[in-house]
Amino acid sequence: MNTDTFQISPLGYISTPFADKFGIPRQPRLAPHAVGTLSLLPPYDRSEAVRELVSFSHVWLTFVFHQTQGKWQPTVRPPRLGGNARVGVFASRSPFRPNSLGLSLVELAGVDTDDGVVLRFRGVDLVDGTPIVDIKPYLPYAESVPDAAGGFADASPPRLAVHYGEQALAQLAVAAPGHPQLAALIDEVLAQDPRPAYADDPARSYGVRLYCYDVKFRVADGIARVDAIEPAGST
Amino acid sequence: MNTDTFQISPLGYISTPFADKFGIPRQPRLAPHAVGTLSLLPPYDRSEAVRELVSFSHVWLTFVFHQTQGKWQPTVRPPRLGGNARVGVFASRSPFRPNSLGLSLVELAGVDTDDGVVLRFRGVDLVDGTPIVDIKPYLPYAESVPDAAGGFADASPPRLAVHYGEQALAQLAVAAPGHPQLAALIDEVLAQDPRPAYADDPARSYGVRLYCYDVKFRVADGIARVDAIEPAGST
Repeated sequence: MNTDTFQISPLGYISTPFADKFGIPRQPRLAPHAVGTLSLLPPYDRSEAVRELVSFSHVWLTFVFHQTQGKWQPTVRPPRLGGNARVGVFASRSPFRPNSLGLSLVELAGVDTDDGVVLRFRGVDLVDGTPIVDIKPYLPYAESVPDAAGGFADASPPRLAVHYGEQALAQLAVAAPGHPQLAALIDEVLAQDPRPAYADDPARSYGVRLYCYDVKFRVADGIARVDAIEPAGST
Repeated sequence: MNTDTFQISPLGYISTPFADKFGIPRQPRLAPHAVGTLSLLPPYDRSEAVRELVSFSHVWLTFVFHQTQGKWQPTVRPPRLGGNARVGVFASRSPFRPNSLGLSLVELAGVDTDDGVVLRFRGVDLVDGTPIVDIKPYLPYAESVPDAAGGFADASPPRLAVHYGEQALAQLAVAAPGHPQLAALIDEVLAQDPRPAYADDPARSYGVRLYCYDVKFRVADGIARVDAIEPAGST
């Protein structure tokens, strides 16, 4: 048994449109309109610490799966395999893993050092408030391996078409001034089919929370149909 | 100031040919003959935990830079920039970083579950005994971004030619039965030019420790010349 331990602490907590876990794209970069903002905490909030970072287009975020922290299972059931087959936790990116460390490749959208350090990312797949414990540049010459064998996750997941009902379109128009990218984000998030892998009831209504909105949808015949986009807590 | 902390502990400690930091390739996969072996510690040493891992060709190792743990600097001088220019620590892969977490993409060479769990990797860039805190599959569809902008590290570093002197060749022949891949590993390690970035004295002799050997070399005119390959501690 191992008694060696290391302590890590957040550089900051990322702000994202994803208030809860349900609906979050299962890998980063699948939803480019999912923007995350990270203010570095002291003593990391100095412009020198991010000098030259802007010359990289993509960065790695190492984070803590804080909602599942301390829980792990030797096997997990990846959504990719229909939620039935079990694979080893180390053959998966499951949050239920020893040490609860996550890894996300995101696009660097901006570095603001006017007042502290604020970083902006595109394509995040993290729940709002996730603790970030490291930021590293992506090194394409070493880390881009297009012909690597990707096991059961060898290709992008299939995508759903996304259609809007009349009520949803009207609500989207109301929300647009405050959240101009909401429609694009809904398209990207629902195209990933966020339903649990084992669920396939065309009549069942699901809700995804994006920013302060509950997005209600159903899925049938490869189409996600958005029924309503309501301010959270209004129903 | 941030008081939130998380504890992490090693899944195991990797065995590699690199007894010390000097000479280690500056990124993984530059030296495919650098083989690492990892025995998982209890309670992770069960075959279920790595089920299906063999279907992936590459894996991420998250590790602790244990030799520099607790030390960080807001700026660092990457070898790539000649060791003079400073960049922010978050724009680098420097070991002197907050939380001391490292990330290596390595090739999965074998999974042995006959007695506990033993994993073998190719292309490691870790010092012998490095604590490994996570193992994740590499997802080419999401993580291979060949056109990403790689800043000051946009391409593979230049390589030196590697020549052997007569004494070194004789010593290599003696070592070969016990370490058949030693010559290939020396070639790969010296081709990376392990000298400190600011050093360029053709007469100066350097020593790299690989397995139990001290490999003595000099560099001039783009050629690394191996002078001797001696059992460590013999000089």
